[in-house]
Amino acid sequence: MLARIAFIGFGVVGQGLAEILLEQKEDLKKNYGFEYSVVAISDKMKGAVYDEKGLDLQQLLNVVKTTGKIEDYPEGITGWDSLKTITESNANLIIEVSWTDINTGEPALSHVKAAIGCHKHVVMTNKGPIALAARELMSMAKTNGIEIRFEGTVLSGTPALNLGVNNLANSKITKIAGIVNGTTNYILTEMEKGLSYEDALKQAQELGYAEADPTADVEGYDALGKIVILTNVVMDGTITKDQVPCEGITKITAQDIEAARSEGKRWKLIAGAELKEDGSVEAYVRPEKIPLDHPLAAVSGPINALTYTTKYLGDVTIVGPGAGREATGYALLTDILDIHRKISR
Amino acid sequence: MLARIAFIGFGVVGQGLAEILLEQKEDLKKNYGFEYSVVAISDKMKGAVYDEKGLDLQQLLNVVKTTGKIEDYPEGITGWDSLKTITESNANLIIEVSWTDINTGEPALSHVKAAIGCHKHVVMTNKGPIALAARELMSMAKTNGIEIRFEGTVLSGTPALNLGVNNLANSKITKIAGIVNGTTNYILTEMEKGLSYEDALKQAQELGYAEADPTADVEGYDALGKIVILTNVVMDGTITKDQVPCEGITKITAQDIEAARSEGKRWKLIAGAELKEDGSVEAYVRPEKIPLDHPLAAVSGPINALTYTTKYLGDVTIVGPGAGREATGYALLTDILDIHRKISR
Repeated sequence: MLARIAFIGFGVVGQGLAEILLEQKEDLKKNYGFEYSVVAISDKMKGAVYDEKGLDLQQLLNVVKTTGKIEDYPEGITGWDSLKTITESNANLIIEVSWTDINTGEPALSHVKAAIGCHKHVVMTNKGPIALAARELMSMAKTNGIEIRFEGTVLSGTPALNLGVNNLANSKITKIAGIVNGTTNYILTEMEKGLSYEDALKQAQELGYAEADPTADVEGYDALGKIVILTNVVMDGTITKDQVPCEGITKITAQDIEAARSEGKRWKLIAGAELKEDGSVEAYVRPEKIPLDHPLAAVSGPINALTYTTKYLGDVTIVGPGAGREATGYALLTDILDIHRKISR
Repeated sequence: MLARIAFIGFGVVGQGLAEILLEQKEDLKKNYGFEYSVVAISDKMKGAVYDEKGLDLQQLLNVVKTTGKIEDYPEGITGWDSLKTITESNANLIIEVSWTDINTGEPALSHVKAAIGCHKHVVMTNKGPIALAARELMSMAKTNGIEIRFEGTVLSGTPALNLGVNNLANSKITKIAGIVNGTTNYILTEMEKGLSYEDALKQAQELGYAEADPTADVEGYDALGKIVILTNVVMDGTITKDQVPCEGITKITAQDIEAARSEGKRWKLIAGAELKEDGSVEAYVRPEKIPLDHPLAAVSGPINALTYTTKYLGDVTIVGPGAGREATGYALLTDILDIHRKISR
């Protein structure tokens, strides 16, 4: 396969992937027979450039770092918006890395549908479209004979989704429970060290772990999107986020932290999903007191983790980064190679 | 693919797989198009039976449970030894689950070579042949156009080997460190609760976690075999077990346990491998004091865990069972399906 790649969005994650693609170019060709050419980049803020013969990715990264404007790249067609880039460029693989809107999924949802509609493969780390419409998108992709992948929507590059979907596929998963939001885990870890909620939040904001408006993290909405994805993609569920009870960490006090400690436990914001006897799956997001000898209890700071409870293996837990430029870029690379392997058969 | 399966060995692990195969028969056909027929079983102690048209697996399990003698199965040819079964039966997939000899790899090593020699796929959980000759066997398999898989040699059904070989293939692994022996981890966990080494060992033996002769576990030789496999298979190393410094847990005293506790640490028997600057890989087995906030510190009792240190993701840890009838049987099932997917392309 010669992948002709279009980046839709070119922020931290997109640039992270671009750097990995450049660094591994020779290895990817040698080890997997995977060759690529980046033909288009379209970013709402930074502008767009398209060249059907391929762009010089290193030069593009330099231009973006120097002037911040993609259109300062010296060649190619400029000015194409995201939908035009998706539908009219000669790209056959769309990297959807625009911004996340967990409520509408837009504009990413429209990007993905447009790509599927014109028979182009899609990889993304944006959980908006997948939390809202995973099964619809997978079904559309199947109908149109193309592949979509989204490993990075949960635990970024940590292969947590792949573990459930592939490696544990026949283990009979009955429950998923995890720490899927690094911001709240960092805050809880700092509160254990003695900080108040307010001070821990402020520290998380200063370190860039929390946004100026921390609502999506601390109220559990980010975790909610991720458990909906896990439920529908790994456990074959059909839930929407409105059906999931969601409680964040804003009510946890220093007294609660101390009370848990005296029980030999530790507060964690847990996103979970459980298979019921009738075959349905119930999901939730809530703070739970985890015994110190459970693998999730030892997961501190911005690190994430997910435990699959299975019939044949008991509990299997994976622990790794939940965010970050390189980790999320790596998620996209694994998705790209997975598609490459699939369609090269 | 219609897999015609021969079991070489039919002890706990083989019977565990047989039960899973029976239980999932319909699912495997529906979800993967995988169909199988067990044509032969040859066990050194229990006897052997072969029927080119296929055996009734449920009936075979019943016979083994009732009389312990495979030859009480009412039909088929009896008396074929393992090598004859491998080479002269019409099986195209060999399940190698005879006993483990970590020093010679035999008889499993001869079984695997015979199977490869007559172009039959092999799955196994026996770490003897893989610790001794992983690269040689993989190379022979490639030359002969067949597949060999051995996920269960490390952390049984926990997909630790797959995680390194596949999911993290491009993450640039620089270090592997893990708890890969459940017996010693159980003993250390019990010593933390106040037991002496001798009492903890006795308890492990009573629970069936340790053998009457515990040498292979407590001196680190079992862990040694596993880190040799990880080094050579995941990190592209070329080491033999003689090159790996190996220290077990027999010298750890109650005082050592207490001293670690006062430092906020915990003793674990760590099997590790590190990439050196010259591109070589150095492996070791030794007790280490692990900080309590490291994911490996929380892994207690007979549970195993492995941490991959990578360039793009930092640390990724997987935690799960390291042994057990169903868990090891499941490892074989994932290997079988992996081969099925590969050759069905």
